[in-house]
Amino acid sequence: MQEIVTKTRTFRRFVEKELLSTATLQELIDLARLGGSARNGQPWQYMIVNGHDLCARIFPYLGWAGYLSDWHGPVAGERPSAYILCLLNKNRLKGPESEAQFDLGIATQNLLLGAMERKIGGCRIGAFNPKLASLFKLADHQHLSLVIALGKPNETVILEQGKDEEDIRYWRDEHGVHHVPKRSLESCLVDVELLVPYS
Amino acid sequence: MQEIVTKTRTFRRFVEKELLSTATLQELIDLARLGGSARNGQPWQYMIVNGHDLCARIFPYLGWAGYLSDWHGPVAGERPSAYILCLLNKNRLKGPESEAQFDLGIATQNLLLGAMERKIGGCRIGAFNPKLASLFKLADHQHLSLVIALGKPNETVILEQGKDEEDIRYWRDEHGVHHVPKRSLESCLVDVELLVPYS
Repeated sequence: MQEIVTKTRTFRRFVEKELLSTATLQELIDLARLGGSARNGQPWQYMIVNGHDLCARIFPYLGWAGYLSDWHGPVAGERPSAYILCLLNKNRLKGPESEAQFDLGIATQNLLLGAMERKIGGCRIGAFNPKLASLFKLADHQHLSLVIALGKPNETVILEQGKDEEDIRYWRDEHGVHHVPKRSLESCLVDVELLVPYS
Repeated sequence: MQEIVTKTRTFRRFVEKELLSTATLQELIDLARLGGSARNGQPWQYMIVNGHDLCARIFPYLGWAGYLSDWHGPVAGERPSAYILCLLNKNRLKGPESEAQFDLGIATQNLLLGAMERKIGGCRIGAFNPKLASLFKLADHQHLSLVIALGKPNETVILEQGKDEEDIRYWRDEHGVHHVPKRSLESCLVDVELLVPYS
């Protein structure tokens, strides 16, 4: 897992002409479906959007890379080849929505690991214009929560250990390489210190 | 990924005497650390709890398998060999807590996939007595959100397609086999229906 987990980064620039078939996207959604779910509720549904015309309809609603203030998203030719829209089916919700968000983390990680195995990269986009949902016929209980952009990656993403532990903003160098500072393992570990001694 | 994703189920009964080393648990936390994070905030920290005495201190605070009302958790000998406590470091939070929950879904899925690769199973436990946190010396900005129980699985878990799409309660048969009804791929897909036609 170490290798595929490390390779599965967020990609925002793609080889747009490399199309993704509906069959491939369904395989990825099947991996999402197989993730664990709080109270086994499995509240998520997925809408596949591929094909140039449909993708072009969706693109203007998306926000990209908040820390790259000079960059307004991928240019034509580098845009995603497909999207998967993640819809919360509130009729299937068995607990609080925070549990559903947790479940969607699990599900989309399965999906993106399976994508990377197929040399497909993706970007989870929570920052979209909410009017995007109004393009589609959705039931009242279906709430658009996340857009996953997908395509063949056309950029290099490098994990690095941040020099300053607290500056975790990703950045792009003069060659267009995307750098992502990761907190060290050490800074993610907390030692056990019992407050209540053994009796 | 299909095989490991399918095998990575929730396990609640373990071979308790099969211990898990701190080094192995750190490897799993490293996989969690490498998951993507909203705004790259990486707000999660992890406390490793292993060894019989410490595990015995934690066990009484845990809730198990809400749908199995006659079962009150694993008996001695089948209890987890280790725990990883997931602590939200609020100083590292860059957005709303729902994003952190999403991130923890990603992180723990990496962790549990890596565990299963090592034949270790786990259970995410959100239903714990909040007094558990008061056993430990934690900073004010560290909030205990999730307990992951880990060990060598000592039960069989079977995925099946539920007969009734809406009854998703897992159940245990007379042989102690744990059955998990999964919604079908078909019921997780939503067709594209544009409300706003092409202009």
